[in-house]
Amino acid sequence: MIEKNIREIVSNILEDYGMERTIDKIDIFNQPDKQEVVNIISGLLQIVFPGYYWDKTNKIYNIAHKLSGKVEDTVYHLNKQIGRALHFAPEYSQEEDISGKSQMITAEFFRRIPSVREMLETDVQAAFQGDPAAKYKEEIIMSYPGFYAVTVNRLAHELFLLEVPLIPRIMTEYAHSVTGIDIHPGATIGKYFFIDHGTGIVIGETAHIGDHVKIYQGVTIGALSTRDAEKLKNKKRHPTIEDNVTIYAGASILGGGTVIGENSVIGGNAFITSSVPEDTRVNMKNPELNFKQRTFGC
Amino acid sequence: MIEKNIREIVSNILEDYGMERTIDKIDIFNQPDKQEVVNIISGLLQIVFPGYYWDKTNKIYNIAHKLSGKVEDTVYHLNKQIGRALHFAPEYSQEEDISGKSQMITAEFFRRIPSVREMLETDVQAAFQGDPAAKYKEEIIMSYPGFYAVTVNRLAHELFLLEVPLIPRIMTEYAHSVTGIDIHPGATIGKYFFIDHGTGIVIGETAHIGDHVKIYQGVTIGALSTRDAEKLKNKKRHPTIEDNVTIYAGASILGGGTVIGENSVIGGNAFITSSVPEDTRVNMKNPELNFKQRTFGC
Amino acid sequence: MIEKNIREIVSNILEDYGMERTIDKIDIFNQPDKQEVVNIISGLLQIVFPGYYWDKTNKIYNIAHKLSGKVEDTVYHLNKQIGRALHFAPEYSQEEDISGKSQMITAEFFRRIPSVREMLETDVQAAFQGDPAAKYKEEIIMSYPGFYAVTVNRLAHELFLLEVPLIPRIMTEYAHSVTGIDIHPGATIGKYFFIDHGTGIVIGETAHIGDHVKIYQGVTIGALSTRDAEKLKNKKRHPTIEDNVTIYAGASILGGGTVIGENSVIGGNAFITSSVPEDTRVNMKNPELNFKQRTFGC
Repeated sequence: MIEKNIREIVSNILEDYGMERTIDKIDIFNQPDKQEVVNIISGLLQIVFPGYYWDKTNKIYNIAHKLSGKVEDTVYHLNKQIGRALHFAPEYSQEEDISGKSQMITAEFFRRIPSVREMLETDVQAAFQGDPAAKYKEEIIMSYPGFYAVTVNRLAHELFLLEVPLIPRIMTEYAHSVTGIDIHPGATIGKYFFIDHGTGIVIGETAHIGDHVKIYQGVTIGALSTRDAEKLKNKKRHPTIEDNVTIYAGASILGGGTVIGENSVIGGNAFITSSVPEDTRVNMKNPELNFKQRTFGC
Repeated sequence: MIEKNIREIVSNILEDYGMERTIDKIDIFNQPDKQEVVNIISGLLQIVFPGYYWDKTNKIYNIAHKLSGKVEDTVYHLNKQIGRALHFAPEYSQEEDISGKSQMITAEFFRRIPSVREMLETDVQAAFQGDPAAKYKEEIIMSYPGFYAVTVNRLAHELFLLEVPLIPRIMTEYAHSVTGIDIHPGATIGKYFFIDHGTGIVIGETAHIGDHVKIYQGVTIGALSTRDAEKLKNKKRHPTIEDNVTIYAGASILGGGTVIGENSVIGGNAFITSSVPEDTRVNMKNPELNFKQRTFGC
Repeated sequence: MIEKNIREIVSNILEDYGMERTIDKIDIFNQPDKQEVVNIISGLLQIVFPGYYWDKTNKIYNIAHKLSGKVEDTVYHLNKQIGRALHFAPEYSQEEDISGKSQMITAEFFRRIPSVREMLETDVQAAFQGDPAAKYKEEIIMSYPGFYAVTVNRLAHELFLLEVPLIPRIMTEYAHSVTGIDIHPGATIGKYFFIDHGTGIVIGETAHIGDHVKIYQGVTIGALSTRDAEKLKNKKRHPTIEDNVTIYAGASILGGGTVIGENSVIGGNAFITSSVPEDTRVNMKNPELNFKQRTFGC
């Protein structure tokens, strides 16, 4: 009997599609495809960490051949998705512009992979030195969510610098969904970066983070609240964290003018909205605790 | 040699299955199937956002045909899973009751899709206005975890209102696993709802949220603690948030009688267990910070 | 035209692989395979909860045959992955040692499944009693992230006790990515353990948790900060939580010498770095709130 309702349901929904709202858009062939972007991340991980994410059906003595195939495939798909994304950039009006620009960006992105890998090796070292629970360096690459989030972020950040619309954010939000760590692709992050545990971390678009920085779960490096969000687009709204800073769990550091000076340590749950000089230890004076004997049976 | 152990291992586990505990249940054909429910979510997203989640192998000029096929498929599977779930509702004892009821609910649910879509369009608008990092409205639909969680919640909430057991919660817990945002399907949420970042948000079953509400990561709209949880089933245990309220990161608002009046703003990390009048700004007096010069080499 | 760049891109990346850093490792056949470990988790869930995760294409009257097949398959793959992981343990230098040891561990692990299942049944009971939103016990097994994380943790903990490198951590970090709940496989957890909501929870490697403990979202049972992480490897760095303790959302309990005595209750957001006696209720004296009338149009 429900079959009789299908026609009515479908025609109501089709009518609803006709309202020309954002959600009614149906020109899917001019939009980046989220699933394709996720596949591209997977291809990039295989290229970046050949011994950790490689397609296990392939023999190792073929590494050069296999890498060629994987690069070719990933170049093809990334190029295609960048082409779609560039339709969102107002400066490209002609299809030929887009095609050339997209190929230029794709090639340049792949040329930067060795320098991204150099950064990632420093992140492995930082995690191994920073975490007493890390028994093996391989454990970090294979299982640490912080390392995964930073890997995807370093790749997405290059596409962000190359001014690709949409795709960098789709990449980092995918990493966010996998890890609970939300780093905007615009954030600039130095060498030897270590995130421990990581769930709940937020790092905003215009944050600058130096070298040898350590961050724990629940830390926000964010913007101050405002009544007029639209005016702030493209302004520096997020803090600068200098070299060798450690920020413990649950701390919030807010505001585009806030600078945490080098070698400083920010204690757990601290709430900071103005700059901190270098070589400073900031601890929240812990809220007083009340201890009370529990009474039962009443 | 390990093969010799298999028989013993299997017979021990089979014996263990015989203990008639909750975990020993094996009548899988009378239980909703979690993987099927996840597939249904995917079908619903394709129906709700035709240009964002559509199966990319299909040509666009077939939108009516394709929608028919997708609706038919999703109706079939949802109807089947609802039928299974209704076995858990004590009022349905007869197989015929269940079959009719399940079809009625499924049809009614699909009739409500246009009104759910209307709400979702307002959520896109709210995110675009509320987030300086949002460059394009499409970015919100394609990548914002808060928007994803609210979409699944609005769909699941309709099934909750139609008194379907189990399935609404499986849907929202799936969205929770994807986004870190835990909204119970019972929660009532108004138009123009915006969640930024989102990880760690908890919104309880009996919460009421008005229109134009903004919520940041780590916010809890929850219940007060109690020694006797079972007595509270089906009572209002969670707050009411009126229109135009903003709640910043890490704030906790607790209790079924707690009302946050319209136009109020709750500051980061505030801990609130009683009502707040309208037009009020509540800030936590930040815990004092201690600043100490770091000393090295000692 | 981009095709012309591929050769150069590939040769640059191949050259980069030659630098002998951790990330350049390519002997993938001697490393555990993360995707295989995820498949093993899925097989174990089918074995542990036969009516909830079973492959739905199989008929139920075949339960004994089906279980045999699933056990055989999971034993085969786990044995293979353990073999690879044991290469990381310095005490196994010979291939024959590894093969025998790996089979011994795999068989012993499977023998322990009934006792793990016994613990999990107590966890279902604890969740049903502890959560007013739980309408059905089946809902807990099918949808609660806390239950999922504890299930994977109890399985991984047995492999941890059997001194398998890498795999236990890959398992729990996978559960972390699904749930936002980060429990190290080394943590010892008693019966009737209940996690509500769960996102953001961190439980460290050397934590001990008694029976009938309840923990809410955002709780950390962690280590005190230190400048010299490497010295702390293999020391007790995380607290002991005795029986019947409840820890509300956002509380942090830190330090290897910290003991929370039985029947105590730790309030939301409390920050605790020293022991608490039994039968004690600890509440954070909430930071003072400022209430201010909002002014508009200025």
